[in-house]
Amino acid sequence: MQFDDYIRSNKADFESRLFEILRIPSVSACSENKPDMCRSADWLVRQFQSFGTEFGMKSELIETAGNPLVYAEYTPEKPAADAPVILIYGHYDVQPPDPLDLWKTPPFEPAVHNGNVYARGANDDKGQSLTHLFAVESLLKTEGSLPCKVKFILEGEEEVGSQSLHDYVYSETGKRKLACDCILVSDTNMFAPGQPTITYGIRGILAAELHLTGPNRDLHSGIYGGAVYNPALALTRILAQFTDAGGKINLPNFYDDVLALTDKERKQFTALPFDESAFFADLNLPPDSASCWGEAGYSVNERRWTRPSFDINGITAGYQGRGSKTIIPAKASAKFTFRLVPKQEPKKIFTSLQIFLAGIIPSGITWELERQHGEAAMCLDLDKSCFVEPMSAALEKTFGRKPVFIREGGSVPIIADCHQVLGADVLFTGWGQEDDAIHSPNEKFSLESFQKGILASAQFLRSL
Amino acid sequence: MQFDDYIRSNKADFESRLFEILRIPSVSACSENKPDMCRSADWLVRQFQSFGTEFGMKSELIETAGNPLVYAEYTPEKPAADAPVILIYGHYDVQPPDPLDLWKTPPFEPAVHNGNVYARGANDDKGQSLTHLFAVESLLKTEGSLPCKVKFILEGEEEVGSQSLHDYVYSETGKRKLACDCILVSDTNMFAPGQPTITYGIRGILAAELHLTGPNRDLHSGIYGGAVYNPALALTRILAQFTDAGGKINLPNFYDDVLALTDKERKQFTALPFDESAFFADLNLPPDSASCWGEAGYSVNERRWTRPSFDINGITAGYQGRGSKTIIPAKASAKFTFRLVPKQEPKKIFTSLQIFLAGIIPSGITWELERQHGEAAMCLDLDKSCFVEPMSAALEKTFGRKPVFIREGGSVPIIADCHQVLGADVLFTGWGQEDDAIHSPNEKFSLESFQKGILASAQFLRSL
Repeated sequence: MQFDDYIRSNKADFESRLFEILRIPSVSACSENKPDMCRSADWLVRQFQSFGTEFGMKSELIETAGNPLVYAEYTPEKPAADAPVILIYGHYDVQPPDPLDLWKTPPFEPAVHNGNVYARGANDDKGQSLTHLFAVESLLKTEGSLPCKVKFILEGEEEVGSQSLHDYVYSETGKRKLACDCILVSDTNMFAPGQPTITYGIRGILAAELHLTGPNRDLHSGIYGGAVYNPALALTRILAQFTDAGGKINLPNFYDDVLALTDKERKQFTALPFDESAFFADLNLPPDSASCWGEAGYSVNERRWTRPSFDINGITAGYQGRGSKTIIPAKASAKFTFRLVPKQEPKKIFTSLQIFLAGIIPSGITWELERQHGEAAMCLDLDKSCFVEPMSAALEKTFGRKPVFIREGGSVPIIADCHQVLGADVLFTGWGQEDDAIHSPNEKFSLESFQKGILASAQFLRSL
Repeated sequence: MQFDDYIRSNKADFESRLFEILRIPSVSACSENKPDMCRSADWLVRQFQSFGTEFGMKSELIETAGNPLVYAEYTPEKPAADAPVILIYGHYDVQPPDPLDLWKTPPFEPAVHNGNVYARGANDDKGQSLTHLFAVESLLKTEGSLPCKVKFILEGEEEVGSQSLHDYVYSETGKRKLACDCILVSDTNMFAPGQPTITYGIRGILAAELHLTGPNRDLHSGIYGGAVYNPALALTRILAQFTDAGGKINLPNFYDDVLALTDKERKQFTALPFDESAFFADLNLPPDSASCWGEAGYSVNERRWTRPSFDINGITAGYQGRGSKTIIPAKASAKFTFRLVPKQEPKKIFTSLQIFLAGIIPSGITWELERQHGEAAMCLDLDKSCFVEPMSAALEKTFGRKPVFIREGGSVPIIADCHQVLGADVLFTGWGQEDDAIHSPNEKFSLESFQKGILASAQFLRSL
C-alpha cells in the first residue's frame, strides 16, 4: 500500500489514539497534575515502541528535575552520505483549562463536532505533535524505511517555560543526542484554512509576576481611606505606566535592540489575504479596533508578529466574592508578559523592568518581582536554508497550493535555544487554524488538518 | 442591687450571650447565609422577650424584602412631660470573613485571649449593639423602669447598603414607629483605649463595580498581543485616572459640594493625642507614609474623617491560579468605593462617575457600571444638641475622663437617612478600638470595653 493510502485508511485509528492522549489532563502549570505528565510521557513512549521497535527505532523517557522528556530516534540502515538529520519537536503539556464554566464540553473529554475535535491540547500541541509520529509510523509500515535520520523530542513544560529541555539541550549529553540539521515544529497555525504556511519567525517572551504589599492587613476603607495608599490602586497606577495609550512600551532602552522591518517583509505581509475587519469581527470587536489600540505606524500583522507587546495575563487584589466588601486590600498582584522580537534579550529586558519599577513604585508600597520564564525570539533566513524548498514542495503536493511565508506572534519556548545550541535551521509548519481557540475555552483542532499534517510530514520526510 | 453592681456581677452571663450570637455566621453579602440572618434576628427578639416582657417591653420581627428588622420598644408607665425618645440603632449582619486562611481561630467560634473576644462581628456590630440591650435589661431588673421611652432598631443589611431599613424609614409606618429625639449608635471606635469618644460626623459612601469586556474570549497573548486591547490593561489605565498621585479625585464637579473645614475643627483635631508614626507603625508602614500618599494640605485625621477618598476594594481579571497563563483575558472588573463628606450626594457622584467613565473608556472596550450602594455623610452640630451634655457626663462617670469629640471616616449606612427623615440628633458613642481589625481577619472586641459600654449606656439612659 502507498503511504498516503495507508494514512487515509488509518484515519479512525489515528484519531482514536489522539483522543487517548487528549483525555490526560497534562496541565504543566498545576503541580497536582504531575502524575498526568508522567502518564502522557509513558503513553508517547509506548506509541513509538508499538510501531517503531521492529524498524530499529529507539525510544526512551529522559527523567529531569521537572517533567520527563520523551526521546525517540530512527536511523536508516544505509543512509546517503548527505542525508540530513531531522529533529521533530513537540510538547505534551497543555495550558490550564479554566475558566471551566465556559467550556461547552469537558476539556479533557474529546468531543467531535463538525469535523473538529474539541479538547484542551487538541491543537496545542498534542494534535499537531502526533502528525509527525503517525507520519513516521506510516512511512515505516509502507516503505520499510526513511531516507534520513529522524529524532523526536517531546517535552512537558512548554507552557511553563521549558526549563528541563532548556537544561538538557545546554548539557553535553543533550547537545550530542539532539544534534541535527533541521528542527521541525508544528506548534503554529496556518494563515488561512487550507493555506499551507511556513512560519519563519516567532516572538520571544518574558513572563513575570509583580506582588505589592501595603499595610500589614486588609483595612476598613472608611477608617483608613484617604490616609493609606491602597496597593490595588498603586498597582493600577504602576501598570498604567508600562505603555503609552497605544501600547508602546515605556521601559528604558526597551527598543534598543529591536530590528527595523525590511521593505521585503512589509510587502510580503501586505500581500497576504488578510481581512482586518473579519479578524476583529471574529473577536466581536469593532472594525476600527486597529486605530483604537496598537503601536502607531504598524499594521495589525506587523504589530502581533514583528513588534514587542505587553499584556496583563492576570490581576488580583482584595475581595473576589459577590457583593461589596469595603476594604483596602493589604496585597495586590499581577501576572504579565512581554512578547519580544529578534535581538531582544529576556535577561536585559528583565533588568530594564527592575530599573523601571524601582523608579516608579511609591514609598510605602513594598514589592517583589518574580521572574517566571523568558525566551528569545528567532527568525530564519529564508534565502539560506536548504529545507525550505522540500517543505514547500511537500506542502504544495498535499494541500494543492503553494505555502505562504509568515511570522508568528507566539513564542515557542526553547526553540530559539535549540536553534542556537544545535546550529540547526528551524521550520515551523503548523496545521492549526486561527480560530482554534488555543489557550481559551473550547480549544479545537480540525480532523482534516490532522490528516493533512500526517500526509505532508510524510511527504517531506521521504523527499529528503 | 445597684444597676452598676448588677452589670458587674452579670459579666459572665452577658459575655456568654454575646458569644451565642457571634456563633451565627450572619454574612449579609452572601445569599447562602440567608438562614443565618433569620436565626440572628430571632435570637435578638428572644432576648428582648426574656427580660423585657414583664416590664411591658414589646419586641417584634419586621419582615422586609431583605433581612428582617428587629424592633423593640419600652415605654415608662409615667413618663415626664419632657422625657425624650431614644432610638438605639445597631446591626446584626457582618462582613464576609475571608481571607479565611489568615484567621488564627475560626471566625464564627468566639475565642477569648488576653481579655478580648476574637470573632467576625465581635466589635462590628454585635458586641457594640448588645451593650445597649444589656444596659436596658440591667436598669429594668434593678430599677424597674427607665425615665424615657427607648426604642431599638437592629437591622441585618448594614454591610450591604441597608436597603430594607432605608425603605422602612421612608415608609409612613416606619417613620411613625421610629419617631424619636435622639438616635444612639455604637458602631464606631474610641479614639484611644479607655478614652471615651463622641463621634459627631461620619463619611458617606458610594460603592460600585465596573465590568469591562474586550474580545469575546480569552486570547493567546502571543498571537494577539499588540493588536488587541487587553481589558485588564485598559482597567488599570482607567482606574489610574480616578485620582492624582496623592489620591485627590479627578471626577468632574466631585468637590463642588464639599464644605471647607472650620478652624475650630482643625484645632480640635490637632489637639487630639494622635501619634502619626505609631498609626503607620501599627500598619507596618513607614513613618513618612503621610507624605507619600494623601491629599495635599490635610493631616492624616483630616484626610480620613473629613475629606472624600477613593479606594479599590477588589480587582479581578484573567488567570488566578499559580504559575503563568499567557492570555489576554476577555474580561476585567473592579469593585470600588468613594467615601463622601457632608453635602456630597451619592446620586450626583454616581452621575459624575458615569460621565467620567464615558469620557475615558476607550473604543473597543465595552463597559457596565453597577451601582452597589450609596449613602450620604452626616455631621452633628455639637453646640445645638441637648444630648451631648448627658452623654458626656455618663462617659466621664464610667471611664473617669471627659470624652473627646471626633469625626469618623467610615459610613454607617442609613444613619444619615434616619437623621434626615426622623429629624433626630445622632450620637455615635462606640466602644471599639482602632486595632480591633473590623472588616479584617481576626476581628476582636475588648471584654472590658463591652462591660463599660453597658455601664455607660445605662448611666446615660437613666439620666435623661
